Amino acid sequence: MDFFQPDFLKIETTLKRHFASHISFVNQVSSHILFAGGKRLRPLLTVCAARLCGYEDDDVYDLSAVPEYLHAASLLHDDVVDAGEMRRGKTPAYKIWGNNAAVLVGDFLYARAIELATRFEDIRIARSISKTVALMSEGEIIQLLHAKVPSFDEDTYLDVIYRKTAALISTSCRIGALMAKGSLDEIEAVSNYGLYLGQAFQMVDDVLDFTADSNEFGKLTGTDLAEGKLTLPIVVALDKAPRKKRDKLMSLLCQGFTSSSDFLWVKELLMETGGIHYTIKKARTLVESACESLDIFSDSIIKTNMKIIALYVLERKK
Amino acid sequence: MDFFQPDFLKIETTLKRHFASHISFVNQVSSHILFAGGKRLRPLLTVCAARLCGYEDDDVYDLSAVPEYLHAASLLHDDVVDAGEMRRGKTPAYKIWGNNAAVLVGDFLYARAIELATRFEDIRIARSISKTVALMSEGEIIQLLHAKVPSFDEDTYLDVIYRKTAALISTSCRIGALMAKGSLDEIEAVSNYGLYLGQAFQMVDDVLDFTADSNEFGKLTGTDLAEGKLTLPIVVALDKAPRKKRDKLMSLLCQGFTSSSDFLWVKELLMETGGIHYTIKKARTLVESACESLDIFSDSIIKTNMKIIALYVLERKK
Repeated sequence: MDFFQPDFLKIETTLKRHFASHISFVNQVSSHILFAGGKRLRPLLTVCAARLCGYEDDDVYDLSAVPEYLHAASLLHDDVVDAGEMRRGKTPAYKIWGNNAAVLVGDFLYARAIELATRFEDIRIARSISKTVALMSEGEIIQLLHAKVPSFDEDTYLDVIYRKTAALISTSCRIGALMAKGSLDEIEAVSNYGLYLGQAFQMVDDVLDFTADSNEFGKLTGTDLAEGKLTLPIVVALDKAPRKKRDKLMSLLCQGFTSSSDFLWVKELLMETGGIHYTIKKARTLVESACESLDIFSDSIIKTNMKIIALYVLERKK
Repeated sequence: MDFFQPDFLKIETTLKRHFASHISFVNQVSSHILFAGGKRLRPLLTVCAARLCGYEDDDVYDLSAVPEYLHAASLLHDDVVDAGEMRRGKTPAYKIWGNNAAVLVGDFLYARAIELATRFEDIRIARSISKTVALMSEGEIIQLLHAKVPSFDEDTYLDVIYRKTAALISTSCRIGALMAKGSLDEIEAVSNYGLYLGQAFQMVDDVLDFTADSNEFGKLTGTDLAEGKLTLPIVVALDKAPRKKRDKLMSLLCQGFTSSSDFLWVKELLMETGGIHYTIKKARTLVESACESLDIFSDSIIKTNMKIIALYVLERKK
């Protein structure tokens, strides 16, 4: 995606401009998560959606910082909640500075992001953003409750990933279209593009937790499994596996950790039952739907590039 | 303050209307903090400020829920950070449902509050609210850093209480005036009223931590001291006490807990050095300034009642 290089540079500069608190400790913790090699997918989508709807000014980069700050804030809190071991290839903030610092700096970043969103005159931007934050925290809560009383079905899964991941990716696109004063159809179209893309993104993430090289992935593999998280390959495996294997998988999910031999056993089961295959296929269908959502726009370089982003989401290795 | 009874009833109804998530667990945790006998000072101020600026519609109650939700969200997070033992006379949420639930439900309440703020057309409302949340989290962070490297002076103290307490109380007033489409002078006047009132409120809180009946207060007394928190009576005592007593006080502040004999010793010292007296006097001056801020408004029942609120803040026992 080399043709996005100029955008990435401007996104990076803008992210550095707005995040700062005058408390240097806040900046230290924020920088740790913000400048640790994130993919910048969300800001890129904001910029692309605005461009697709005909917006040409550079202040869209300011707006594009909003979803990235929200994302960083949610990662700070999620790592506290999940007691994650590795994030973007680094030790998570809560392990270095403590839970308290991670919670409070997360709060600060949420607030700063929303404040930035309110600087734009169109109130629908701040409205979308704050609704999305509520959805994101609900998604984490459903996941938390689920870890205590495991229940695995595809509908619950889709609900959780909508809240946790797809809503913010969809909103990243929506606010770009809002800034561009797109028509209602255009706003709807780019929001759907983001929604399908976000769902596909999470499904690919689920698969990478089993198949990725953990150095390249930036997180440890097998952690979703160890935390008993609801992922689509597991949902499928539980549905398709013969009773005995199903029971073993269920008990592994409940115990809160997995040995490497258990991990390999589960990975094998996911292949056998078609859990990995089903998930990849589903992600591919979603990426196709994402691309089709853009059909209402006439052909352009930016439209083509947004389809390339969709394909990147499918083929990413980290 | 019986004449506010009709307002309190409407505030209570409105608080119940907007907080709900469709996840019942979220409602359970939110209710625990939201409906545990809070004073409803912040929503009352929003309503009063709007009325003072001539606003008569009842949708101001919807707006008044915003600062109360923010306040509840911050209490959920603060209790996690401070490991508080008692809140509004009850066991704090994190002790019942765990840190994770308290963090995530706090996030949800923050987001819901800001979302509610964006429902009003005037973008300055959402802007004030999100700026205030950023200030509040910075205030908690300064306090957290301070607990590790104690430094006690009145300027740092004023900075912390501005962020932690006074900013939100001032904003509660400001958004009422914004909704009423008050003039810039009017907005400024009620914001100042809230600012002075908020500072006085915190100073009274500092004193109550030493002098209150803990059943009536709804929190344990002596906790600020045990947590080494920066309070004004302590700032004064450190400045005025003879060297030996100063050293003993400093070491008590650093150790992270206090026995009841130490607590009584400190209380005695605060009397001797005039720390309690100075703080009460300062709070009284601030309450006078708060009342004077309202001078630009012509006399009315609501103006008188707002002065009564200011006096209540000074004389409250909980």
